[in-house]
Amino acid sequence: MELTVYLAGQIHDNWREEAAMKAAERNLPLSFVSPQTNHDRSDNIGEDILGKQPTKLHKDDVASDINNFRTQVLMQKSDIVIALFGEKYKQWNTAMDASTAIALNKPTIIIRPESLIHPLKELSNKANVTVETVDQALEVISYIFE
Amino acid sequence: MELTVYLAGQIHDNWREEAAMKAAERNLPLSFVSPQTNHDRSDNIGEDILGKQPTKLHKDDVASDINNFRTQVLMQKSDIVIALFGEKYKQWNTAMDASTAIALNKPTIIIRPESLIHPLKELSNKANVTVETVDQALEVISYIFE
Amino acid sequence: MELTVYLAGQIHDNWREEAAMKAAERNLPLSFVSPQTNHDRSDNIGEDILGKQPTKLHKDDVASDINNFRTQVLMQKSDIVIALFGEKYKQWNTAMDASTAIALNKPTIIIRPESLIHPLKELSNKANVTVETVDQALEVISYIFE
Amino acid sequence: MELTVYLAGQIHDNWREEAAMKAAERNLPLSFVSPQTNHDRSDNIGEDILGKQPTKLHKDDVASDINNFRTQVLMQKSDIVIALFGEKYKQWNTAMDASTAIALNKPTIIIRPESLIHPLKELSNKANVTVETVDQALEVISYIFE
Amino acid sequence: MELTVYLAGQIHDNWREEAAMKAAERNLPLSFVSPQTNHDRSDNIGEDILGKQPTKLHKDDVASDINNFRTQVLMQKSDIVIALFGEKYKQWNTAMDASTAIALNKPTIIIRPESLIHPLKELSNKANVTVETVDQALEVISYIFE
Amino acid sequence: MELTVYLAGQIHDNWREEAAMKAAERNLPLSFVSPQTNHDRSDNIGEDILGKQPTKLHKDDVASDINNFRTQVLMQKSDIVIALFGEKYKQWNTAMDASTAIALNKPTIIIRPESLIHPLKELSNKANVTVETVDQALEVISYIFE
Amino acid sequence: MELTVYLAGQIHDNWREEAAMKAAERNLPLSFVSPQTNHDRSDNIGEDILGKQPTKLHKDDVASDINNFRTQVLMQKSDIVIALFGEKYKQWNTAMDASTAIALNKPTIIIRPESLIHPLKELSNKANVTVETVDQALEVISYIFE
Amino acid sequence: MELTVYLAGQIHDNWREEAAMKAAERNLPLSFVSPQTNHDRSDNIGEDILGKQPTKLHKDDVASDINNFRTQVLMQKSDIVIALFGEKYKQWNTAMDASTAIALNKPTIIIRPESLIHPLKELSNKANVTVETVDQALEVISYIFE
Repeated sequence: MELTVYLAGQIHDNWREEAAMKAAERNLPLSFVSPQTNHDRSDNIGEDILGKQPTKLHKDDVASDINNFRTQVLMQKSDIVIALFGEKYKQWNTAMDASTAIALNKPTIIIRPESLIHPLKELSNKANVTVETVDQALEVISYIFE
Repeated sequence: MELTVYLAGQIHDNWREEAAMKAAERNLPLSFVSPQTNHDRSDNIGEDILGKQPTKLHKDDVASDINNFRTQVLMQKSDIVIALFGEKYKQWNTAMDASTAIALNKPTIIIRPESLIHPLKELSNKANVTVETVDQALEVISYIFE
Repeated sequence: MELTVYLAGQIHDNWREEAAMKAAERNLPLSFVSPQTNHDRSDNIGEDILGKQPTKLHKDDVASDINNFRTQVLMQKSDIVIALFGEKYKQWNTAMDASTAIALNKPTIIIRPESLIHPLKELSNKANVTVETVDQALEVISYIFE
Repeated sequence: MELTVYLAGQIHDNWREEAAMKAAERNLPLSFVSPQTNHDRSDNIGEDILGKQPTKLHKDDVASDINNFRTQVLMQKSDIVIALFGEKYKQWNTAMDASTAIALNKPTIIIRPESLIHPLKELSNKANVTVETVDQALEVISYIFE
Repeated sequence: MELTVYLAGQIHDNWREEAAMKAAERNLPLSFVSPQTNHDRSDNIGEDILGKQPTKLHKDDVASDINNFRTQVLMQKSDIVIALFGEKYKQWNTAMDASTAIALNKPTIIIRPESLIHPLKELSNKANVTVETVDQALEVISYIFE
Repeated sequence: MELTVYLAGQIHDNWREEAAMKAAERNLPLSFVSPQTNHDRSDNIGEDILGKQPTKLHKDDVASDINNFRTQVLMQKSDIVIALFGEKYKQWNTAMDASTAIALNKPTIIIRPESLIHPLKELSNKANVTVETVDQALEVISYIFE
Repeated sequence: MELTVYLAGQIHDNWREEAAMKAAERNLPLSFVSPQTNHDRSDNIGEDILGKQPTKLHKDDVASDINNFRTQVLMQKSDIVIALFGEKYKQWNTAMDASTAIALNKPTIIIRPESLIHPLKELSNKANVTVETVDQALEVISYIFE
Repeated sequence: MELTVYLAGQIHDNWREEAAMKAAERNLPLSFVSPQTNHDRSDNIGEDILGKQPTKLHKDDVASDINNFRTQVLMQKSDIVIALFGEKYKQWNTAMDASTAIALNKPTIIIRPESLIHPLKELSNKANVTVETVDQALEVISYIFE
């Protein structure tokens, strides 16, 4: 049984590569999908395809059309969603992806540092499992295969 | 036709009372529901009902059980969701409520200041309408009755 | 048993008033809802609420945000959808509303002139009933109450 | 990850072949499905199978039975829907397919010339992405695989 | 708590009036809806509204458009479906209505004579309850209010 | 806003009357529905309506047809489900009702004594809130109206 | 693209083998599934597994448990449903299977002789396509692959 | 056609291995999935991953987070659910898994000893089939492939 895992969350460090490597070390039969992790490409994708937009708002709007399209395709193909929150940035996309996954009955794991317990308490409460590290998230998934 | 509107968002000023008053002035046939807006009560509701918990995490977890219960009951009764974002606070609950509403096909309006265009771009893109003020949100709803 | 009927279709003549009057004459317990029928208001509603937009495309986009919001609220409240096609105009909104209604299992009646049999054949085929006049559509609804 | 793409839209030029060729040039792992593109066969399929019908309306009705059957089978197998509008023809089938796809949560791209911005504004607004050329649509899909 | 009950089944005797009278005698807070019970009207409704059709098949097809429209509206308004089978007639509409109700999670009661146990065994097995008389069906519903 | 509450659970003491009385004292706008609480009537309802059955298994089967019919009607009418577990009896119906409610997205409260924490841990974890007394359950519901 | 086709209908002649052979001759990439076609086995399967039952009704009930289980598994795996009606027998299972398939949005073809046009008119009207022979049904499916 | 079968139920003997062996002997194309069957690991999994918890209740709560995550992933991948009840233990998880499966339209078989007929009567009534032994359950599944 192969499972596809959507990795929602910030795109400012290489936690996804880390997750993939650690899954490979454990021989977990997982394939990972994710949002665009090249931040500039993600911000510019609308203008890259549709050309210069009149304002920043409109540049953002066409970019988000295409980012949301990508997320919808990939999340529909996924069996599990992991959403990682860090201490920086607004990360409303991460909250959006996790909430959407939960509403669609996708089994969902949240990773967040101890410092974010309070502001994430309602979302954590709706997710299946909340952990603090990528390793713990992989242990949770690994438990499926025991 | 009476409509019920769920008002998601921060609970640090009286924007909900303002919305209700302005709706009354316009004679809109709306009733408003919302999360608990007494911040302390919202944080303490778990311990208020279930007694002292061993750690802050566990206090937060029982509070969020009951806050999420309330939100689920009221959102299921609502025809429209308005989600207001401000410049302070994490507001992940607001993102969670808006995303859940969208996933459940509830018509959804986002209110956010210009400064938050960029971090909210994907969520705005999935909502029906994004505006900057409570007045504009009410104008949008008022348009249903024209 | 009161039924709510959404009247999708062109907004260039007063067919909705005619339908309402004829329903009243037959004492049918119906209430009618519809898209914005003031064409200018429908085109301008985005700028009326959100202010001047940089291009026609963007003016159209904010208008359609709010028109779609209105339609979603009202169609969710409806028990029946009537979609009227005439010989002029593109009327893709009418096709969109009828198709959405059918996909959501709303009982749907199409009204179209004989001249449009061929281009509407697949949509007619998916609707419950296709007729040629408003009177016939009301006879169909009236049959529910016999 | 292989994706299946339904190509809704007019059947009067070879845009589907063009799309398939361009996807192959980009090495995109896509397979394309579509409505019957032989116009005469599409119009006659009812009579071809069920025999001569008494009127044009009835010929059209049996043809659309079978065209709708084909579309329903293939759209249910698809991960993505592209709907192309051109300047000629009524194209209500295209609007019907795009609207149905959106109502079923299929990620949807609309291709339309600049001249159709206004009449398609509400449908564009509900689709994930709207572009002007087949190339742009493929760039959007290609972005999923980056 | 008022409940609406859809009465599917043959239209060749007055079992629906009997059911309504007996429910009234028991003071059950029920309102009953049903298909058209005037057999000729049911067969002719298509031609009554749309005019003479070229063949019997086409007369039947337009009649069933409108009969199915009526059933869909009324069944969506119902809390309970009762489907009565008798010894005569094909009664495939009754089987269709009961099966549709079950697929839509409508609580469903089948009434059938002992002689039909065998041919109805799979459908009985999927319904909530199978009884032999209208009185028994009302006792089942009456049990809700104890 | 009136809410309907389904009270699942054992029928060996008068906890439902207690809940209704306490809700009335708090002026909560609730109406309560429940399974048949007369144990003998619940066991005999099948034979009461359908007559003597050949074995105990068949007596139980016809009774459960009608008990499940009642539960399905009433749970579909409910906004909230409370499921109470006590120390005696198998109570698999209670687990079944709570699990069904959760799967249908009905907001659900479990009441159970401390001694049952361990065997109910997975079900508690899926419910919205778990408390130990009827009073606490009413406080949770009461919180909706603050 | 391989498609799975559920063949509902009478089990008194070898029409399923005929369909499979004709599909093979046309090189259609179809696999066929169906109810138990050995009539005695279908009637006895309950007693074959669970032992002698006290009455014919109970024998039928355990048989239908297992026949319905089989149908539910196989229909959920199917992309298309064909339901064949003949002139003999009640065939309520065929009507049940076709109606269930339609309610679940499975593309559905009905095969029936001309003599059954009238009693099947409402069910035919809800199916995608109605034909008179197995060959025609295969031509309809074959059209998907043109 | 390969089918995946989720084996819900007690984890105190090796009935799952027995089921797998017997399925292999019959050459049934089945793969089996199940909850964690190592009882200690199941109780400790929360603390194994997340560390020591302050109380037994909290230890149980984190364990059930992860057990429920596993069950949700595997049940969504399953075509059939078998739920086995024995004479010992509360087995509310088994009732929960069976009820969830039924609510999600998963074809479901219950295995229970004769002694549990009465307390399981409502759940048995909602499942597709109830048998007394693992062999009988496999005969039921085997019937799909005849």
